[in-house]
Amino acid sequence: MSPVRIGVMGCGRIGRMHAELISWQVPNAEVAAVYDVVDDASAELAKELGVRQAAEPAEILESDDVDAVAICTSTHTHIDLLVAAADTGKAAFVEKPLALNLADVDRGIAAAEAAGVPVQVGFNRRFDPSHRYVRDRVAAGDLGDVHLVRISSRDPEPPPLMYLDQSGGIFCDMTIHDFDMIRYITGSEVTEVYATGAVLVDDAIGEVGDLDTAVIVCHHENGAISAIDNSRQAVYGYDQRVEAFGSAGMSASENPLTATAVTRTADGAHGPTLPYFFLDRYIPSYLAEWDAFTAMMQGAPSPVTLADGRAPLVIGLAAWRSVHERRPVRTDEIG
Amino acid sequence: MSPVRIGVMGCGRIGRMHAELISWQVPNAEVAAVYDVVDDASAELAKELGVRQAAEPAEILESDDVDAVAICTSTHTHIDLLVAAADTGKAAFVEKPLALNLADVDRGIAAAEAAGVPVQVGFNRRFDPSHRYVRDRVAAGDLGDVHLVRISSRDPEPPPLMYLDQSGGIFCDMTIHDFDMIRYITGSEVTEVYATGAVLVDDAIGEVGDLDTAVIVCHHENGAISAIDNSRQAVYGYDQRVEAFGSAGMSASENPLTATAVTRTADGAHGPTLPYFFLDRYIPSYLAEWDAFTAMMQGAPSPVTLADGRAPLVIGLAAWRSVHERRPVRTDEIG
Amino acid sequence: MSPVRIGVMGCGRIGRMHAELISWQVPNAEVAAVYDVVDDASAELAKELGVRQAAEPAEILESDDVDAVAICTSTHTHIDLLVAAADTGKAAFVEKPLALNLADVDRGIAAAEAAGVPVQVGFNRRFDPSHRYVRDRVAAGDLGDVHLVRISSRDPEPPPLMYLDQSGGIFCDMTIHDFDMIRYITGSEVTEVYATGAVLVDDAIGEVGDLDTAVIVCHHENGAISAIDNSRQAVYGYDQRVEAFGSAGMSASENPLTATAVTRTADGAHGPTLPYFFLDRYIPSYLAEWDAFTAMMQGAPSPVTLADGRAPLVIGLAAWRSVHERRPVRTDEIG
Amino acid sequence: MSPVRIGVMGCGRIGRMHAELISWQVPNAEVAAVYDVVDDASAELAKELGVRQAAEPAEILESDDVDAVAICTSTHTHIDLLVAAADTGKAAFVEKPLALNLADVDRGIAAAEAAGVPVQVGFNRRFDPSHRYVRDRVAAGDLGDVHLVRISSRDPEPPPLMYLDQSGGIFCDMTIHDFDMIRYITGSEVTEVYATGAVLVDDAIGEVGDLDTAVIVCHHENGAISAIDNSRQAVYGYDQRVEAFGSAGMSASENPLTATAVTRTADGAHGPTLPYFFLDRYIPSYLAEWDAFTAMMQGAPSPVTLADGRAPLVIGLAAWRSVHERRPVRTDEIG
Repeated sequence: MSPVRIGVMGCGRIGRMHAELISWQVPNAEVAAVYDVVDDASAELAKELGVRQAAEPAEILESDDVDAVAICTSTHTHIDLLVAAADTGKAAFVEKPLALNLADVDRGIAAAEAAGVPVQVGFNRRFDPSHRYVRDRVAAGDLGDVHLVRISSRDPEPPPLMYLDQSGGIFCDMTIHDFDMIRYITGSEVTEVYATGAVLVDDAIGEVGDLDTAVIVCHHENGAISAIDNSRQAVYGYDQRVEAFGSAGMSASENPLTATAVTRTADGAHGPTLPYFFLDRYIPSYLAEWDAFTAMMQGAPSPVTLADGRAPLVIGLAAWRSVHERRPVRTDEIG
Repeated sequence: MSPVRIGVMGCGRIGRMHAELISWQVPNAEVAAVYDVVDDASAELAKELGVRQAAEPAEILESDDVDAVAICTSTHTHIDLLVAAADTGKAAFVEKPLALNLADVDRGIAAAEAAGVPVQVGFNRRFDPSHRYVRDRVAAGDLGDVHLVRISSRDPEPPPLMYLDQSGGIFCDMTIHDFDMIRYITGSEVTEVYATGAVLVDDAIGEVGDLDTAVIVCHHENGAISAIDNSRQAVYGYDQRVEAFGSAGMSASENPLTATAVTRTADGAHGPTLPYFFLDRYIPSYLAEWDAFTAMMQGAPSPVTLADGRAPLVIGLAAWRSVHERRPVRTDEIG
Repeated sequence: MSPVRIGVMGCGRIGRMHAELISWQVPNAEVAAVYDVVDDASAELAKELGVRQAAEPAEILESDDVDAVAICTSTHTHIDLLVAAADTGKAAFVEKPLALNLADVDRGIAAAEAAGVPVQVGFNRRFDPSHRYVRDRVAAGDLGDVHLVRISSRDPEPPPLMYLDQSGGIFCDMTIHDFDMIRYITGSEVTEVYATGAVLVDDAIGEVGDLDTAVIVCHHENGAISAIDNSRQAVYGYDQRVEAFGSAGMSASENPLTATAVTRTADGAHGPTLPYFFLDRYIPSYLAEWDAFTAMMQGAPSPVTLADGRAPLVIGLAAWRSVHERRPVRTDEIG
Repeated sequence: MSPVRIGVMGCGRIGRMHAELISWQVPNAEVAAVYDVVDDASAELAKELGVRQAAEPAEILESDDVDAVAICTSTHTHIDLLVAAADTGKAAFVEKPLALNLADVDRGIAAAEAAGVPVQVGFNRRFDPSHRYVRDRVAAGDLGDVHLVRISSRDPEPPPLMYLDQSGGIFCDMTIHDFDMIRYITGSEVTEVYATGAVLVDDAIGEVGDLDTAVIVCHHENGAISAIDNSRQAVYGYDQRVEAFGSAGMSASENPLTATAVTRTADGAHGPTLPYFFLDRYIPSYLAEWDAFTAMMQGAPSPVTLADGRAPLVIGLAAWRSVHERRPVRTDEIG
């Protein structure tokens, strides 16, 4: 096959990472052009990769040498770009979250369905080998019926306040990965959400109405219960663990370490830290995500559909309502 | 010092275990007499240990050669025996839970306080070396301010239905250990409880109004949040993990294994199971519990006071109300 | 069955440990009497256990209420006591090493065989659950043909020099456990030994002609090779690991920890130490050893025969010759 | 800085890997041209990377747009190419082993010294984060004086017999990495070698005079002892462990896993395999190796000098003599 030619939109941290991975480590894809609302950002990346800089999204969307777009811009622009991609018949990779309101999401879904273009949403953690190992045990029936899923998902440090303010808050920005994960692990939709939290890391986070510490409990259609805990600041690194428990056993994805080594002295054992953040932990998942994208371009079903992008947003919105109304909230109250 | 002479009341599984440990492995204690409402049970144990069989509790309580009683009978008899011990000036070890209602507990507390006898409640897990390691890290400040506590506490198999029926249900029988643990780890009282659960293991458990699978979220006075998950049936063994997360780091107590060994073949890694149940896992904690008891008899403060026995019952009752009313419940609603 | 009545000879550290374990934790055995060449030592232990103090070995050997003797005295007295036990028809448990020369060992074997008394040698590590796990994998064929065995066996601190001087040196005192282990794991005799070492811990050890650091390589009849490393001083605790590698896989016995816990901070991971020494690590193996002894008294074959006691001494003597002559030495050069 | 322009000589498995890594993942280096004695091999790689195919080494060596050569050809051609590089003033990266005889190595060293070109030998394992962690503990003094180094180094499957035949045998082809590692870890030269082994994997390996299973014991100048075990066939994957033990503690580099996950069922624990071979395990070390190379090109000292390439060959040759003469061999007997 000839490589999938991808136009990367958004050259911030995550867009740049995708563009570099596609260029250097994804055998069946290449970057055709890059765009960013900030000219300097796209210019720098274009130069680094030796690819075309697009001055406008349209230069990518209307180009014959682009097969697909990677939408890595600010969240509020995702759907407009997705709709534009659909309108020009381009396949799309869209970063999470799709949007912060369901009306936008549904507009994007309608456009993509009407155009029939393949779309993959950027829930990369599904492709992490250890998380996937847990899900494969569930899917293979090794754990019997799933009763409980338990996730710890903790960032090493909070994002800038300016970012937080437009992020949709912890549940739509950060926990949304975990909401995707519990659907992925259980293979079952969430019916009810109870969320609670606190501001323990930084008062400024509370002042914009957000939380930095949270626990969320979800019930699933199949009877399983999921418990998620989040923190915006784990000083020891990026703590990402997933566990499924069922009638026939349990399976757990533990953290990798920066080195698999240990020292023992009279004072006890000492060992290396966790990977610092997603660039240290999740590169293999991003590569597998792009391999899946190229397979989708060859006709395989989308590994993370727009419906998979919508459902966690519903859960995230239900979580916020749960916090505000101090009660469990059914997802069908949200939409 | 001469050994503490203990009269063991209740010769069921847990009473027998305590009596054997005291006889054989606790340097500063010995069993003086044993009593059980079932004559054969006490006769058998008395013979095994070469000690006196008491026909009535009074034979122990009024005996000059007994310094303390170990109350290991059915839960509903704990308080009457505690009060009787206080009235006769005997120190007491009381198994958990103290009772299933606060009026009884408060009656026991009043009697013990009036008599001034030392009392220790049987929350043995505080003495587990790994759980204690976590608590010591918190107490030493190594983790900074505690933000989250996470406990998985799963039994290998449900108790008999007849037992369940009088047990106070999962929250007062099983989770009560975890409610004690979160107080022990955080050093902070619980202010609010949200509990939810399901019947996924055995429908008969649901038919007596109980749950077999549960998730409980607690807020503490100091701002920390605790998340507990329970199952009555972990087919892979007795799964007992405790984790504390704070501003300066985390600490986790992981399961011990029946053997610290691993096999690697072309099919992957293979290893031994978890300990099957509390007799396999927690013997070191029971021994340390009795060492602490003998220290208390020498004048040290009680390591697990009656107040420590009361608080988890309040949380357990709040958890049941939370399930029934489908809302977070403040502990001060309970008492 | 009625309990096996055991006369314990030698009330030093190891004899006392055996006596206490037998008294308190071995269901089918009891201590009938204790003897030590130092009267005070046996008096103290007799009082602690409430058993008879024997003034002479003969008081035990000729007693009708003794079924078996536990020979835990100084090494040079083992064989005379074993012969005396055989002559009086007593079964025997004999601590390792049987003796420091083969003539003595063979005299003991002849006496025991002539008398037909059951004898078990005190290679307790065979009963450690993790080491046993590895051996069971080999015996079950899970590893295919064994190619390599690898042992690290390191003490936390050297014994007193006075002890060292009569110990037979590192190979006959310490490595002898590992020589037993490689026979146990492989099920195959050692044909050739290469040993080398150094004095790195304490010059005084070298001054008595001993080594404190050693590496030994053995060839087995079945083609497997074993590599052992020893140190008299591992400041981080008692390091005891065994690994078998074969055509179908590998299996490893790793160290247990004093607590199965970990702490993670910005500085990395921190954890508890290893058990300090054999009393912390190997109690379960000693208990299983005594359970096996009581089974032997019921007619089961000896789990560690006198031949199993002899073979490691041959290897140990070959190791010393290898060091002195700086060449691999065949075990049939020794005897 | 402008990227280091590298001419890759040898487009077999290892040369191709280096060329791809340099092209895609080494920020400060790029491939300028590729050469292989087999035209098709270099043509295919040149096309893949979009770089020049050289028909002869001279086309690379005499080119102005090449700063350095990566010598990844068959071992017997390494030194001639190194000398040619030196003669044309090119820096060089040379794969291990430098050669199979010391005369050749010394000729290469003389040429490089005369020309003053920077040279780095391809002992990539020095750059593995876990092995490096162990070495850093030693270098920092955390372990005190080093007493023992222990390495298990096992390949998943033997190379083709045709390759074996010209490889220098297990000690010069495979163990040579471990001989480098013990020098790297201890910082001390090897003075004496005892090697022994067996043919347990494949009789054909024995028929060409080689071994497939080996144990090697080395003494170092500083008194430390190293013990290495090797196998050509570990069916469970690429088993690569390094451990240092000293007066103040120990440090161990354990195997990474393909996924950091575990499953627990009633049958015990189950987990993923080891990485299959060096391409799965050691990519991070190869990348760090090239980062070090680019630093050397900026003036940093060579991280793996020609002297570091020579010493392990001496040890390997001593190991072969030890096997043939069945005795410990001093390295100064070799050269």
